[in-house]
Amino acid sequence: MTAKTAITPATHTTPPAKFSHGVRKGNILQVAGQVGFLPAVPGQPPTVAGPTLREQTLQTLANVRSVLEAGGATWEDVMMLRVYLTDTAHFAEMNALYNDYFADLKEAPAARTTVYVGLPEGLLIEIDALAVLG
Amino acid sequence: MTAKTAITPATHTTPPAKFSHGVRKGNILQVAGQVGFLPAVPGQPPTVAGPTLREQTLQTLANVRSVLEAGGATWEDVMMLRVYLTDTAHFAEMNALYNDYFADLKEAPAARTTVYVGLPEGLLIEIDALAVLG
Amino acid sequence: MTAKTAITPATHTTPPAKFSHGVRKGNILQVAGQVGFLPAVPGQPPTVAGPTLREQTLQTLANVRSVLEAGGATWEDVMMLRVYLTDTAHFAEMNALYNDYFADLKEAPAARTTVYVGLPEGLLIEIDALAVLG
Repeated sequence: MTAKTAITPATHTTPPAKFSHGVRKGNILQVAGQVGFLPAVPGQPPTVAGPTLREQTLQTLANVRSVLEAGGATWEDVMMLRVYLTDTAHFAEMNALYNDYFADLKEAPAARTTVYVGLPEGLLIEIDALAVLG
Repeated sequence: MTAKTAITPATHTTPPAKFSHGVRKGNILQVAGQVGFLPAVPGQPPTVAGPTLREQTLQTLANVRSVLEAGGATWEDVMMLRVYLTDTAHFAEMNALYNDYFADLKEAPAARTTVYVGLPEGLLIEIDALAVLG
Repeated sequence: MTAKTAITPATHTTPPAKFSHGVRKGNILQVAGQVGFLPAVPGQPPTVAGPTLREQTLQTLANVRSVLEAGGATWEDVMMLRVYLTDTAHFAEMNALYNDYFADLKEAPAARTTVYVGLPEGLLIEIDALAVLG
């Protein structure tokens, strides 16, 4: 029996519902959908990093990374990233930011699916991740 | 070699295409996207639990649970839930129903991604799940 | 320590960003979102198989299969397929093509989620896959 552990980075707000920012069980780590919220300030509602795709993409990647690291993983362990955008016109810019962000990756980069969905107002990007450790 | 097993709860209709409601291989169990259909009646087409988000959310969660249980898992084993809604205005109500439903969960709750997509007419919510058994 | 390996079938173009068409680590293989691009021609931009749902669905399935096979897996190992369509009116035709394609599957068919999202212009379908090898 392997225990399932909730992962809550210090930078994160408490989820607004009964879910975890990430969970790990054995060598599998799942990161919940992250958005561009700045590190949590106790007693304050979540604040988005800014109105631009650049600000939100970089903050969202930072938030995914926080969950990975709090669960003992790194980007090198990530198998799949799901990127949700709200506008097909954002693809090229997101890709450029993404490439810069992962320029130093040593291991094989993760697989990825990018699709265009609806998100809560003001949010331009959401990313979740599946990692396999070990 | 571990066999892959299709999971078909007694409550479920035969899938309308060549896919399974769930599959298990080793300790990994994947639940296909579930919607708010009532338990199947032989010879009848699937019937949605009702027009409201409340009816469909509770039935969808019951259907995910049926697949988990038919595969030997429980909510405690679930790593990730993907919740697909059709309207951002449904978020708060879905979250409240979700919190009530999972109020007694002992283990860490699953990670979650909620996005807004299109679904077949009349359906307001779809949920799929990845579980790792222990 | 199990290495993570990028999977790049000979038929595939280099990804337009720092991601892999598929990755394998241990017995888990993740196929990135595939679309209906024809086999890559060096020096040429990707070309979609055709404007119809039929052409794109069959090519997308062929591309998922190429990644699976390049990673040492087959359709029999697939646990989950995520099918992204752009129009609910495409569901019946996609399902019929899908059923024909998988008619000879021996093992349990994969679980599946089908949702309606936005895709880059001209693309009607995207599919990703999670496989667990035996």
